[in-house]
Amino acid sequence: MGSEFVVCEPVSLERAETATFRTHQKIPVILRPCNREQVARAMSIACRNGVPVYPVSSGKNWGYGSRVPVVTGCALMDLSGMKRIVDFNERLGYVTVEPGVTQQDLYDELRARNSKFWMDASGSSPRCSLIGNAMERGFGHTPYGDHFAQACALEVVLPNGETVRTGFAGLPSARAGQVYRWGAGPSIDGLFSQSNLGIVTGMTIWLMPAPEYFQAFFFQSDREDGIAAIVDALRPLRMDGTLRSAVHIANDYKVLAGIQQFPQGENAPLVPERMKVLRERLKFTRWSGSGALYGTRAQVAEARRLLRQALKGATSKLQFLDDRTLRVAAKFTGLYRMVTGLDLTRTLELVKPVYGLLRGIPTQQPLGSAYWRKAMPVPADPDPDRDGCGLIWTAPVAPMEGEEAARLCGMIERRLLAGGFEPMISITLLTERAIACVVSLTYDRDQPGEDEKAMECYLALRTELEREGYYSYRLATPALPAPAADSAYERLLRSIRVALDPGDILAPGRYVPRV
Amino acid sequence: MGSEFVVCEPVSLERAETATFRTHQKIPVILRPCNREQVARAMSIACRNGVPVYPVSSGKNWGYGSRVPVVTGCALMDLSGMKRIVDFNERLGYVTVEPGVTQQDLYDELRARNSKFWMDASGSSPRCSLIGNAMERGFGHTPYGDHFAQACALEVVLPNGETVRTGFAGLPSARAGQVYRWGAGPSIDGLFSQSNLGIVTGMTIWLMPAPEYFQAFFFQSDREDGIAAIVDALRPLRMDGTLRSAVHIANDYKVLAGIQQFPQGENAPLVPERMKVLRERLKFTRWSGSGALYGTRAQVAEARRLLRQALKGATSKLQFLDDRTLRVAAKFTGLYRMVTGLDLTRTLELVKPVYGLLRGIPTQQPLGSAYWRKAMPVPADPDPDRDGCGLIWTAPVAPMEGEEAARLCGMIERRLLAGGFEPMISITLLTERAIACVVSLTYDRDQPGEDEKAMECYLALRTELEREGYYSYRLATPALPAPAADSAYERLLRSIRVALDPGDILAPGRYVPRV
Repeated sequence: MGSEFVVCEPVSLERAETATFRTHQKIPVILRPCNREQVARAMSIACRNGVPVYPVSSGKNWGYGSRVPVVTGCALMDLSGMKRIVDFNERLGYVTVEPGVTQQDLYDELRARNSKFWMDASGSSPRCSLIGNAMERGFGHTPYGDHFAQACALEVVLPNGETVRTGFAGLPSARAGQVYRWGAGPSIDGLFSQSNLGIVTGMTIWLMPAPEYFQAFFFQSDREDGIAAIVDALRPLRMDGTLRSAVHIANDYKVLAGIQQFPQGENAPLVPERMKVLRERLKFTRWSGSGALYGTRAQVAEARRLLRQALKGATSKLQFLDDRTLRVAAKFTGLYRMVTGLDLTRTLELVKPVYGLLRGIPTQQPLGSAYWRKAMPVPADPDPDRDGCGLIWTAPVAPMEGEEAARLCGMIERRLLAGGFEPMISITLLTERAIACVVSLTYDRDQPGEDEKAMECYLALRTELEREGYYSYRLATPALPAPAADSAYERLLRSIRVALDPGDILAPGRYVPRV
Repeated sequence: MGSEFVVCEPVSLERAETATFRTHQKIPVILRPCNREQVARAMSIACRNGVPVYPVSSGKNWGYGSRVPVVTGCALMDLSGMKRIVDFNERLGYVTVEPGVTQQDLYDELRARNSKFWMDASGSSPRCSLIGNAMERGFGHTPYGDHFAQACALEVVLPNGETVRTGFAGLPSARAGQVYRWGAGPSIDGLFSQSNLGIVTGMTIWLMPAPEYFQAFFFQSDREDGIAAIVDALRPLRMDGTLRSAVHIANDYKVLAGIQQFPQGENAPLVPERMKVLRERLKFTRWSGSGALYGTRAQVAEARRLLRQALKGATSKLQFLDDRTLRVAAKFTGLYRMVTGLDLTRTLELVKPVYGLLRGIPTQQPLGSAYWRKAMPVPADPDPDRDGCGLIWTAPVAPMEGEEAARLCGMIERRLLAGGFEPMISITLLTERAIACVVSLTYDRDQPGEDEKAMECYLALRTELEREGYYSYRLATPALPAPAADSAYERLLRSIRVALDPGDILAPGRYVPRV
């Protein structure tokens, strides 16, 4: 590949071996291919020589393992240098990108082109790879929030170094490759998500037409078990398409970690009784939700009416926010403070990133909560790996029923508090019928013993959740490979693995059980 | 399996060897398992003895090959006896079915339960299997029209006789198996659609909540190239979610075949000049479209406003129809005839099945057009295989652009007319960005030489379409396996095939190239 693409210096290797929780895997070398041909060549060489390779896009899989391979001794293939936007279609609303293209890159591209389309952004970091997130089946906040469901035409380098394109995209002069997912014959896109069966070096992402009108909404409930009523109230609207995007509901711990770091003078973990005091002092509630309405003014007005009707009784407060309200609010913060004594500036600072996410604008603000237990303040350029932030994510999925949501939250809160950690939870109305419950176990890796304590708590939580039938949509490396289905399923995955990668070269142990 | 599940009598075998076009493949035996265990047992026996098996659900894959295996000598596995509705959830809106459950079966179930949910139906026949259609990636008319996209939790018997369940559904006591598609790890559902890698013996289908209000719409254009303007006018509404379901647009030939059989006294093929005369006489237009709006009254009203605005200039007529209008019309047909001299009854008869499909009510009415060139009238119980109806379908996909639609239709109309057949075309706005163009090549198999002439025309059409980059979303057996992608893709499919079915036992040649 040429030595300029190969990194061996110890500092870089050690950095790459660092995640947001304790890992022991060693990385002997980092490869930085800058195009598909180099990826393919590297894979055929690796295959011939039996060298395991672990590919990452931007490598910002924080909370799930960052860049660290599942097993020790893998060459790390860093694809962040592949930054081409290969295709852009303003008429049909799609873009084709390489793995190094980040959320911010696409956002900048849309702005530079003065595009009539919006992207969807995850709440992670503007520097996250679009392909990386879609392949891990991450999600965002707009109607295009299910990233894998809005992607097609994958370009994949197989473990043997060959390249395939999925759907119609691989057929000669195909006209519908970028607009139709399935192609003809078996649809194999899914094989390359949450997997180690190929390296995705290209992907088409569908973009959302900017609506005529956009309105965000925020709601609150201070009832202890408010989550149940909220989920049940919103389900019909999510199912009938009135709510076209995911609604996110955070518990009080999650909100507090979004506002500030661990409050000085309090004992860890913050117990519910203390949270109650803090909630009153800082004026937030047990549950807070956000979402948005997209459409013409009349479509949004009708959705607003239905939302008001649905949430009546389930929430104590429901507020709507659009560009105009936001501008007016920004203008009158001074006056507002004079009259009420309250500082609206801070509120606006907190609201703006969420408001932006709801319209697909990437932000690094939520990443700040990874510094919750840190002694240092959140730096301007946050990097949880570098800064010793402890973070382990679990994300169990459940049917969209209030009872299920309440039960899940109860289990998680009890388990994390018992383990000594604040249970930060968000419940996302992910699809028409399913909720995902994202739990962040956040701690300070620089505190001796915390790594072990956190991992123990994480494993206990996972065991309990899986025993109750709540499986995570996405797994952190300590949970890999995926939980054992019946053995026939495992045998099936393994036989596909053997067919594609007999030498167990590509990201061994990642999701698919080892050969 | 017991002899009661095995059919060898010549009449049944010959019937099963008959499609809607010429085939030569022989079927030595028909197996009729009535549960998954029998399917699994049959497969392990077949595997051990090297007997190829060709599974069909209801076997009504008319126009694409009916029940006839791709290669000769396969035991036909007829799953139509597996008719259990295994699960039904009225809260979350889903149903789990076996392959023998038909559209009519599910419709009856919904009615019997007085369910608040609607199903989606394809325009084929009430007796078509839900699993069969979803696995072939068929589509219908409501917001849940992309059948494969609304299915999850597949239960699959592998070629070796083992059973797997996909997504979370295969994990112990999983709670979200029926509501969340992906599960954790690679998503393998796609592998079993348009494929021969497994036999789908169970599937969960999501159901659509019945809207508060429903309104169908119908539009017409008598401009020769009207299709281009219509597609361009509707694209923004399909992309922004105002139109939540597929819109279907038929050319004049398709409409005529829906109204009546080949007109007596005309020469075949009916040339465009004659069509013009018939259009004037029978009062229909060059292009006719239908679709529907779903939601609250206000949501539908706003969608109606936007649709009117969009179609102004692109169509000559746009009409809306709801339950009330339909009831009133039915009441006043007599009066209407007295005043205008026109018989509305016939129009209502034609409109009602389409109106029903738009609300997910199965109908056999469109199947009548398979008898277009037949001397016999459409029987009460149509069966194109039995009645010697000639029917070959091609369904190229294109980007949702007017120019593409017009170009495609032009190519198809020229090619079919040159081959001596009436070009019946419908253009479906299938997804937010793609159109599918369903072409039915319809003839009378009892006319000597027609089988050959039709197949020749079909092959020429396919060659021309593929040369121009228009590939079909679904393939008739003479087109199988799927068109050659680059050889790496073919090698990949073949290696998966070898891993799952080394003996090439399950439906050899179906979509995946032979080992």
